[in-house]
Amino acid sequence: MRYVHGERQMLHGGRTAMADYEARHFSLEVRDGVAIVTLDRPERKNPLTFDSYAELRDFFRALAYADDIRTVVVQGAGGNFCSGGDVHDIIGPLTRLDMPSLLAFTRMTGDLVKAMRACPQPIVAAVDGVCAGAGAILAMASDMRLGTARSKTAFLFTRVGLAGCDMGACALLPRVIGQGRASELLYTGRSMGGDEGERWGFFNRLCEPDALSDQAYELASNLAQGPMFAHAMTKRMLHQEWNMGIEQAIESEAQAQAICMATNDFHRAYHAFVAKQRPIFEGD
Amino acid sequence: MRYVHGERQMLHGGRTAMADYEARHFSLEVRDGVAIVTLDRPERKNPLTFDSYAELRDFFRALAYADDIRTVVVQGAGGNFCSGGDVHDIIGPLTRLDMPSLLAFTRMTGDLVKAMRACPQPIVAAVDGVCAGAGAILAMASDMRLGTARSKTAFLFTRVGLAGCDMGACALLPRVIGQGRASELLYTGRSMGGDEGERWGFFNRLCEPDALSDQAYELASNLAQGPMFAHAMTKRMLHQEWNMGIEQAIESEAQAQAICMATNDFHRAYHAFVAKQRPIFEGD
Amino acid sequence: MRYVHGERQMLHGGRTAMADYEARHFSLEVRDGVAIVTLDRPERKNPLTFDSYAELRDFFRALAYADDIRTVVVQGAGGNFCSGGDVHDIIGPLTRLDMPSLLAFTRMTGDLVKAMRACPQPIVAAVDGVCAGAGAILAMASDMRLGTARSKTAFLFTRVGLAGCDMGACALLPRVIGQGRASELLYTGRSMGGDEGERWGFFNRLCEPDALSDQAYELASNLAQGPMFAHAMTKRMLHQEWNMGIEQAIESEAQAQAICMATNDFHRAYHAFVAKQRPIFEGD
Repeated sequence: MRYVHGERQMLHGGRTAMADYEARHFSLEVRDGVAIVTLDRPERKNPLTFDSYAELRDFFRALAYADDIRTVVVQGAGGNFCSGGDVHDIIGPLTRLDMPSLLAFTRMTGDLVKAMRACPQPIVAAVDGVCAGAGAILAMASDMRLGTARSKTAFLFTRVGLAGCDMGACALLPRVIGQGRASELLYTGRSMGGDEGERWGFFNRLCEPDALSDQAYELASNLAQGPMFAHAMTKRMLHQEWNMGIEQAIESEAQAQAICMATNDFHRAYHAFVAKQRPIFEGD
Repeated sequence: MRYVHGERQMLHGGRTAMADYEARHFSLEVRDGVAIVTLDRPERKNPLTFDSYAELRDFFRALAYADDIRTVVVQGAGGNFCSGGDVHDIIGPLTRLDMPSLLAFTRMTGDLVKAMRACPQPIVAAVDGVCAGAGAILAMASDMRLGTARSKTAFLFTRVGLAGCDMGACALLPRVIGQGRASELLYTGRSMGGDEGERWGFFNRLCEPDALSDQAYELASNLAQGPMFAHAMTKRMLHQEWNMGIEQAIESEAQAQAICMATNDFHRAYHAFVAKQRPIFEGD
Repeated sequence: MRYVHGERQMLHGGRTAMADYEARHFSLEVRDGVAIVTLDRPERKNPLTFDSYAELRDFFRALAYADDIRTVVVQGAGGNFCSGGDVHDIIGPLTRLDMPSLLAFTRMTGDLVKAMRACPQPIVAAVDGVCAGAGAILAMASDMRLGTARSKTAFLFTRVGLAGCDMGACALLPRVIGQGRASELLYTGRSMGGDEGERWGFFNRLCEPDALSDQAYELASNLAQGPMFAHAMTKRMLHQEWNMGIEQAIESEAQAQAICMATNDFHRAYHAFVAKQRPIFEGD
């Protein structure tokens, strides 16, 4: 299901195959176009460090040019998603930084969310156990989220004297779960349980812990067999129309969808339908 | 309950009574100020065609000048709402169009949603059975939605290789059901069941299939007996404030509500209250 | 837990302690940094009057400079929250005002919501019984809401011939409960019950009527022991990012959070964590 377009490659100034990328600060597996990113320090509940922040940011940025990755799963190892920025590795050093360095840090973490929203691949977060602080942000910044009943998602910033406005949370979280519920989580830092998270629309559905990773892969894999170009347009427009008026959004979608109607994938789908076959999408 | 204002008619360059409009590509009944629009090709699950798109767009545009229509019900015949753009009648021809023609089509369909949001009458969609593709958009573009447990609402575009950004879906759907749930429906194209739809806020409530049409009419009829001018202002401001800041929205509402306080309907309501009577709203 | 900063006081042109403020048109109690505002005309279900609107607006404006108030509870006396603008005291006089006076009134009521959103203290509404018209707006304009099963929240404006666009409702309510549900409440003026309100995200949770006031105080008091400066930043950014694009929101949060990382509260929290103690936040 790989596809290569010499001319497109030129336009992009060279596309990068990411399947062979060797991640240093997380685990990466690529299976049939699905990149499975595993935060993998289970003995510490998979905290983020300066290094892993930066590598994740660069990884998601590189996905913009990676033709071989169609969707992404983000998960944690050992029954937890991510405990966020480690107190010793991150909070401690931050208390000793000057203002330009602090801003460089908050911009770097923000750049990770920007990269996750900007990459063309839909991202599925698989959330079990602890999902805290910057970990909760990673889940929130994904396109879809599968959870477990025992998962605990907490926007902990307030507990260390910080504000809830971290990496876009005051903009993104209210649109996912509503303004009143987001306000409570951001002011109090309390954990949202799995059932609550499903009821509130944070989780698309709950899975058994044992089945979570497989079901996240299955969702991502199903999407990977869909029209990659069109999925990327859906993602871009969800981003683009965030603060447009309705009229402008409708005109923008008229243009975006007209572009999609000029793709071979659209034609393939029509001909497959007429022939009573399942369409094979190739992303062009 | 009809009212005529010679001067207002002049201001508008002539108002149109729509009660006598003879629809060609859908059924129209007008009962006590409620326009009941029925998509009416039940043997095909009420698909949209180039013709019905255009006539619906023109109909909703004309409602802006129709003093005799106070609210609208949109429904489908024969136990289904609408199967969307027909594969043979619409998708096939689209695969043979050049880019300007494709854009003309996506703009025409977008113009239908713009007209539904711009007309002053609140619109109630009554959704049973299949509600797919552009049909799901029609439901989404309505002001309120009644559903049935057996209804299946699917934003199918991805299945034919297209993006979820169709007719405003990436802007409107997240505000109705939340960003995460909207993302899933738009990426996967899967059906949202009636219970889900009610839980997520897509449906205002579920009805028994046999009672759906009557209950949608009853809701629309109750609104039709309310203050038409003020309802139109509510609808306009829900549209207008879509992407305003809170300060600007509050000032806009201060102006809009001051206008409503200068209407006879407001005075009638006060005097009816004092006299312990039910107010009769006349829309002026 | 009081703190005084001579220099800051100068910067603000003098800070006001509000704990000794003697309210005339509502009851005020200040306990451990929590201001408890009680609408207190229980025999009339705590209606708003021209005077109480104005005093509440001025009170919330003054909170911007009140170092001694860390959070606010708004509640009603006698088993009801607030019946809104009184028909005799407010609606009647409004029917006799000229347009500049009408606009002055709608701007004054809007200014109350602006002041509630602009003050740095998180506001918890405790909603029991009747919560109608402008009362529903007060609840909506708070940051969090606790309710009771028997509470009835109604955006009644349509019943007196007015529009739902009052004091920001068409902007704020859809972000709290979703566009479709907000549309129904604003068009119909019907009551939202407590269970519905909780399911829809209007209420953060329901309490027993007898426990409501205590639980609202407890929530507010817990927040009052948190990082006041950071809470104020969270509130400001929830407001500020309302209609920003995602990129701009993330950059804004990078700056806002960098500011919070330069506070003593952040350093205190880190050192308390290392020492396995509970941090004491002082708001600087």
